[in-house]
Amino acid sequence: MVDLVDQHVVSIQAFRAETLLQLFRLAAKFESNPDRYCRHNTPLTGKILINAFYEPSTRTRLSFDSAWHRLGGDSINITDRSTTGIAKGESLEDVAHMFNNYGDCVVLRDSNPEAVYAMSSTLRIPIINAGNGIDEHPTQAMADLYTMFKWRPSLASKEVSPKDRIRIGVIGLPSRMRTVRSLLRILSKFPQILEEVVVIHAPEMESEAPLFDPGQLEELEASGMSIRCSSDLAAEIPDLDVVYINAIAWVGDSYEVHGGGFRLTRDLPFKPEAIVLHPLARGPELSTCLDDTPHNWYFSQARGAVFVRMALLTCMVNRAERVMDVI
Amino acid sequence: MVDLVDQHVVSIQAFRAETLLQLFRLAAKFESNPDRYCRHNTPLTGKILINAFYEPSTRTRLSFDSAWHRLGGDSINITDRSTTGIAKGESLEDVAHMFNNYGDCVVLRDSNPEAVYAMSSTLRIPIINAGNGIDEHPTQAMADLYTMFKWRPSLASKEVSPKDRIRIGVIGLPSRMRTVRSLLRILSKFPQILEEVVVIHAPEMESEAPLFDPGQLEELEASGMSIRCSSDLAAEIPDLDVVYINAIAWVGDSYEVHGGGFRLTRDLPFKPEAIVLHPLARGPELSTCLDDTPHNWYFSQARGAVFVRMALLTCMVNRAERVMDVI
Amino acid sequence: MVDLVDQHVVSIQAFRAETLLQLFRLAAKFESNPDRYCRHNTPLTGKILINAFYEPSTRTRLSFDSAWHRLGGDSINITDRSTTGIAKGESLEDVAHMFNNYGDCVVLRDSNPEAVYAMSSTLRIPIINAGNGIDEHPTQAMADLYTMFKWRPSLASKEVSPKDRIRIGVIGLPSRMRTVRSLLRILSKFPQILEEVVVIHAPEMESEAPLFDPGQLEELEASGMSIRCSSDLAAEIPDLDVVYINAIAWVGDSYEVHGGGFRLTRDLPFKPEAIVLHPLARGPELSTCLDDTPHNWYFSQARGAVFVRMALLTCMVNRAERVMDVI
Repeated sequence: MVDLVDQHVVSIQAFRAETLLQLFRLAAKFESNPDRYCRHNTPLTGKILINAFYEPSTRTRLSFDSAWHRLGGDSINITDRSTTGIAKGESLEDVAHMFNNYGDCVVLRDSNPEAVYAMSSTLRIPIINAGNGIDEHPTQAMADLYTMFKWRPSLASKEVSPKDRIRIGVIGLPSRMRTVRSLLRILSKFPQILEEVVVIHAPEMESEAPLFDPGQLEELEASGMSIRCSSDLAAEIPDLDVVYINAIAWVGDSYEVHGGGFRLTRDLPFKPEAIVLHPLARGPELSTCLDDTPHNWYFSQARGAVFVRMALLTCMVNRAERVMDVI
Repeated sequence: MVDLVDQHVVSIQAFRAETLLQLFRLAAKFESNPDRYCRHNTPLTGKILINAFYEPSTRTRLSFDSAWHRLGGDSINITDRSTTGIAKGESLEDVAHMFNNYGDCVVLRDSNPEAVYAMSSTLRIPIINAGNGIDEHPTQAMADLYTMFKWRPSLASKEVSPKDRIRIGVIGLPSRMRTVRSLLRILSKFPQILEEVVVIHAPEMESEAPLFDPGQLEELEASGMSIRCSSDLAAEIPDLDVVYINAIAWVGDSYEVHGGGFRLTRDLPFKPEAIVLHPLARGPELSTCLDDTPHNWYFSQARGAVFVRMALLTCMVNRAERVMDVI
Repeated sequence: MVDLVDQHVVSIQAFRAETLLQLFRLAAKFESNPDRYCRHNTPLTGKILINAFYEPSTRTRLSFDSAWHRLGGDSINITDRSTTGIAKGESLEDVAHMFNNYGDCVVLRDSNPEAVYAMSSTLRIPIINAGNGIDEHPTQAMADLYTMFKWRPSLASKEVSPKDRIRIGVIGLPSRMRTVRSLLRILSKFPQILEEVVVIHAPEMESEAPLFDPGQLEELEASGMSIRCSSDLAAEIPDLDVVYINAIAWVGDSYEVHGGGFRLTRDLPFKPEAIVLHPLARGPELSTCLDDTPHNWYFSQARGAVFVRMALLTCMVNRAERVMDVI
């Protein structure tokens, strides 16, 4: 995991499959021994995280802040762009110089998709993209895939037999939702686990906006991913092993709701062992009646996200050796 | 104090008198040895507090945050509802699921009185109601009573002789002020210390709003409390041992000012040993000319509130054993 | 440095030159051994800093928060006056009483210049003025002078030979800019290092506003400082050893831009060894083309500010003995 030391986490593209698997193993160790790192062995003691969340968020911000604190680190929070140097007209490069002096790692959520790229060239400390407009949300995708491996550990093997491969239904808009964009990209690094990916969209959207950005679909297919589109959720559901749904796309300082027609409820014809994933926060598209069913892996997904972030942050600030002997 | 482990602190109603007395003993230990827990013995190391303050507050938020940090814990803060999942339409139950993943304890202040109840059923970590609209503010009442016992330790005895019982004047509106509602409730658990409680209200308010909610007065009297109303502060003051005053009621996203006619100043005919309590922040109703008099126990009340919260938080997250041998 | 224990840092006026030099020595130790205090020796463990930033700031707030955390302390943040007791009409003295209960040190930035003075008389814990309207910004001036001594260590000697004295150009408005006011005051404590101070202002400003407040210039000259004004930057630059520039004055809840006519770029006729200082955030007045030149000491200035604050905070809360043996 030396790969990850001081590595910026801006896009999923930069990550090798092997590195991700090692990350997930470390996350799993954290998840099975949550207390061991909080009381006695705090690898991030003395390290400072700068949480720069210029776009509304509680879930992601708390997830990172909790992960960092569990490991003994301290954090500094900026949650309002109007109080920052940026309001005074300061350049992103100057903000990056400032962050270099104050912390060891930055987590940035900004509706301006370019900000994380502009800052990462000047930063001498690593930065994590916690969601930049419609572009990416790499750590969310890591949490999503981690959850799939937790559910079906055989998928993490070097060789996955054809009968173990999964069909994933993605109810969302790849061109507008950063969670979906990152998810498809991370899946493309593990084509051997996939039978097929089915992007399911509301019928009316075919005329409203393209499902994929130019080149997005081609890039995914070039990895060996078999990807198909459909607007008939009822027809697809009986064959889906994983049903991933998201309805919100964050665009600029506002958001769009897509896929308003779809609603996952317990009476849909799920495969008995199918799991449902949602990055949360959820709206009506994911009914609470599913919460008490075995299909509910979205709570596990949220829980695992903290441990994935703990693993990632530990490696990025080069403190992995402090946890290795405890694992 | 095993009672308190993982216990939600939503209303004072749930607390037994014996538990409260043990809590106050622990608070008193913290108050007499403030440094012992900060440098060497930090029982909340590795624990995370989620401060969710959706209603304006500095005093209460800082009080909890300070208490938690003094004991070695870390905290995550949410101070603006518009940045949370709630702004995205997320249910309180889902917010509770989220908090379960990120912290060990929640402190909530919300102008919506139902929020703390809605969340406490889903939360698997304990929650403290830090003020919910006009309903309750249980830890403030604990601090108020703790201060009275500090002033008159004989009141904490199993048996209080009639000559030691106190007459408490409460200048406020029981139906609208959460601090008063909780205070009267906590007093009702110790009827043996009370000669009488006199609720003092401005004359004009008799026509504006009922002093008590339906059933509120009856519930208090059923505990053995002798409670009387008056609108003549000047006539009551010479007989009051404790003068409690508050003028602000937080209602929805705004506040009302009550009892504008009353003003405590040093030239009122106080009993020589009478003490004045106020939950603060104060306005003109409590004159600064009282600050330098022996009647001023409101500063001690604010100071003690931190230690009461330290004691409560330590017990709630089951770390009392870490301080017991130091006491 | 016993001088500094519990000392309020409101104005530079209160500081003796010898105390400042000792402070800078401690800061230099922190700067040359940044890791030593973060991992093993955390002098501020158990101490709580109250960051009260009622005026927009990221740079200064993060600088203090980072300094405090690096030394093992915890902090509580107030960044919005509308959520504090002040919004409820609470007096500054009552806010100070509140702070006495919750922390060990206060850092205050308030557009109301009187607030820090009003609070410091009631506070029993030390307060640092992090910028109060147009009045002062003492720790910024400490950072500025620390940087000059870092660049030219001979200036810190007891005796400075005439050939080593420096000419400082200050491009700014002494009557309106708190950074300039504090800088000139701290320089006046070291008149032996100065050949001359040249205050450089845009020509049009001579009619708009007085450069100095009544008595300000006289106070500086009384210290032995030789101070001159000029509006011809091009003519002055070839003789300046230090070029200090600032364009923003924070007034009330807004700011003014001064000296819009001046712009420092690399093609100006600087002395070869001249250094440029700017408290940052910068605007067009300091061109990025200077960043890669040897004149750029403004990044070092920002970096050093954290260590100066670490040194100051450590001394103020009387934990200097915890670092002394490590130095």
